[in-house]
Amino acid sequence: MQLSCPSPVLRHETVQMAHGAGGRLSQELTARVFMPYLGNPLLDQLDDQARFDAEPGRIAFTTDTYVVTPIFFPGGTIGDLAVNGTVNDLAVGGAVPRYLSAGFVLEEGLPLADLERVVKSMADAARKAGVVIACGDTKVVQKGQCDRMFINTSGVGFIPPGRDLSCRNLRPGDAVLLSGTVGDHGMAILTTREGLSFQNRISSDSAALNGLVADVLQAAPHLHAMRDPTRGGVAATLNELAAASSVGIELDEASLPVREDVRGACELLGIDPLTVANEGKVIVVVPRDEAEAVLEAMNGSREGKDAAIIGEVVREHPGMVVMRTAFGSRRILDMPLGEQLPRIC
Amino acid sequence: MQLSCPSPVLRHETVQMAHGAGGRLSQELTARVFMPYLGNPLLDQLDDQARFDAEPGRIAFTTDTYVVTPIFFPGGTIGDLAVNGTVNDLAVGGAVPRYLSAGFVLEEGLPLADLERVVKSMADAARKAGVVIACGDTKVVQKGQCDRMFINTSGVGFIPPGRDLSCRNLRPGDAVLLSGTVGDHGMAILTTREGLSFQNRISSDSAALNGLVADVLQAAPHLHAMRDPTRGGVAATLNELAAASSVGIELDEASLPVREDVRGACELLGIDPLTVANEGKVIVVVPRDEAEAVLEAMNGSREGKDAAIIGEVVREHPGMVVMRTAFGSRRILDMPLGEQLPRIC
Repeated sequence: MQLSCPSPVLRHETVQMAHGAGGRLSQELTARVFMPYLGNPLLDQLDDQARFDAEPGRIAFTTDTYVVTPIFFPGGTIGDLAVNGTVNDLAVGGAVPRYLSAGFVLEEGLPLADLERVVKSMADAARKAGVVIACGDTKVVQKGQCDRMFINTSGVGFIPPGRDLSCRNLRPGDAVLLSGTVGDHGMAILTTREGLSFQNRISSDSAALNGLVADVLQAAPHLHAMRDPTRGGVAATLNELAAASSVGIELDEASLPVREDVRGACELLGIDPLTVANEGKVIVVVPRDEAEAVLEAMNGSREGKDAAIIGEVVREHPGMVVMRTAFGSRRILDMPLGEQLPRIC
Repeated sequence: MQLSCPSPVLRHETVQMAHGAGGRLSQELTARVFMPYLGNPLLDQLDDQARFDAEPGRIAFTTDTYVVTPIFFPGGTIGDLAVNGTVNDLAVGGAVPRYLSAGFVLEEGLPLADLERVVKSMADAARKAGVVIACGDTKVVQKGQCDRMFINTSGVGFIPPGRDLSCRNLRPGDAVLLSGTVGDHGMAILTTREGLSFQNRISSDSAALNGLVADVLQAAPHLHAMRDPTRGGVAATLNELAAASSVGIELDEASLPVREDVRGACELLGIDPLTVANEGKVIVVVPRDEAEAVLEAMNGSREGKDAAIIGEVVREHPGMVVMRTAFGSRRILDMPLGEQLPRIC
């Protein structure tokens, strides 16, 4: 697609159907809203595909579509959430995230200023994470046929030779670490949406973790598995890990980092923070003797300052996650059935 | 995510909000609707990212979101359209398409049978094109917040060493070829949507072109550029090529392959078939002395049986596409401004 319009066209303040039609107004949208923020040597080619050299190791490839509502919330936008989420999906597989795609579905009538704000937040997040938005696509649907905007980000990264992380690698005796407080993102969205006001607005933890993950991998040469506890929260991720490796996991409730405002909001709303989505946290499973080194590596970065060892892998009750409560009792932490918080990411 | 459900859960006949929440109902949807059709060694890992080895050459990476309505139409579904479209975006860059992602946004209440039909059509299209659906994601939004379903497919392929196609490569004297009839896809969608009935139902040309493109590349070692004329049709693609290479393009109207039913529908509706989307056609620009070989290669495949040499690249009127009409006059074929046919792909 061409950057420059061959002749002046009408300027609009909102998204028009024609902005998604592949003609001159599509070009105008690209030139006016996307390229000033996202422009880079790959995207500037405006070919149907981005082309780049492979780097040593295996390729990692991932995809996520973001439908969060509202699109602006304390601590982020749908745009930086999309970039950070895909960066993190690559990082937790041991890959160095490098190239992202961005696919937009826009609702007719969306203010272009809102789109511009989202695009700018994507550019900032990509720069922070050290990734390039290499290719993109924009579709427009009629008013009422999507809710403001959805963004798909797919990502390509490279896994250095010899690195092999998998959710099947957990072994009894392993330590389970969490890089920070649980439930911040989900509760930020929910309290914003419901108009609940607490002393402080709860802020999303949306962040790229590839820097923290690189430090962790350096500290723990025998690291077994990493996962980011997004939809379904820590509860879903730990249940998936336990099932995939046919081991049990025991958590220590007292060790779980939870922000006071998040704990308060969860209690008020009757929600278990362990089932709430995070967007800037990683769960790491390592041999016990590497746990302290991982903790130290996490604590050394801003994203990991509240990191904690939260539990251990056990031979007993394979596939099951059990919580040792502060009162000394034990309860099963089940896989969440379904929908507590729709459209959280 | 786990394949098997740890315990029986309620069976639903329609998409529920909980199917997108990352919990047990998400697992059920994966196990019941996605894996039976799309399952393969990469997707079966159900990790947050697919991992595979690089192949020789550069990497090509592309993305497209599909919002076509209706989701079922003569000649295809939103699912095979998404697979074919992304395969073609890779192929026209000279890449061998290998891995696709699939990101679904589903509307609450969508019949699971419809989703299953779409997923099956994706699996069939991927098999035909020889690509693997390597990773996926599903989001659900409330009823009324998207129109049935949208699908993003991103793709990764490999460009063999030494191959360099670009829309900047056109040279005066080059021949311009089109692999078949124009406007089939767009008019299939439009006539379906409007309930127009002609003698025969117009069928979409949705098809993967990587086989045809491989034959063309073998026949034309000095091929300059390829593009698939989707949104905006042949008119938009030729204008983009002319502008990118700062050359003129002259078309010969009499040589343009148009199906009789498509021509009739376009005349009835006052639409220029050259501005209508195609989903199984490629425009190829080659030095004149390789044009016959390309034509022969195209004619040798089912997708290219109606291929034709439709024009040439000229030094005059750079950036402009001019049509020589059947009556001997000349008219400018402009870049379409905007929206003739919304949500065609």
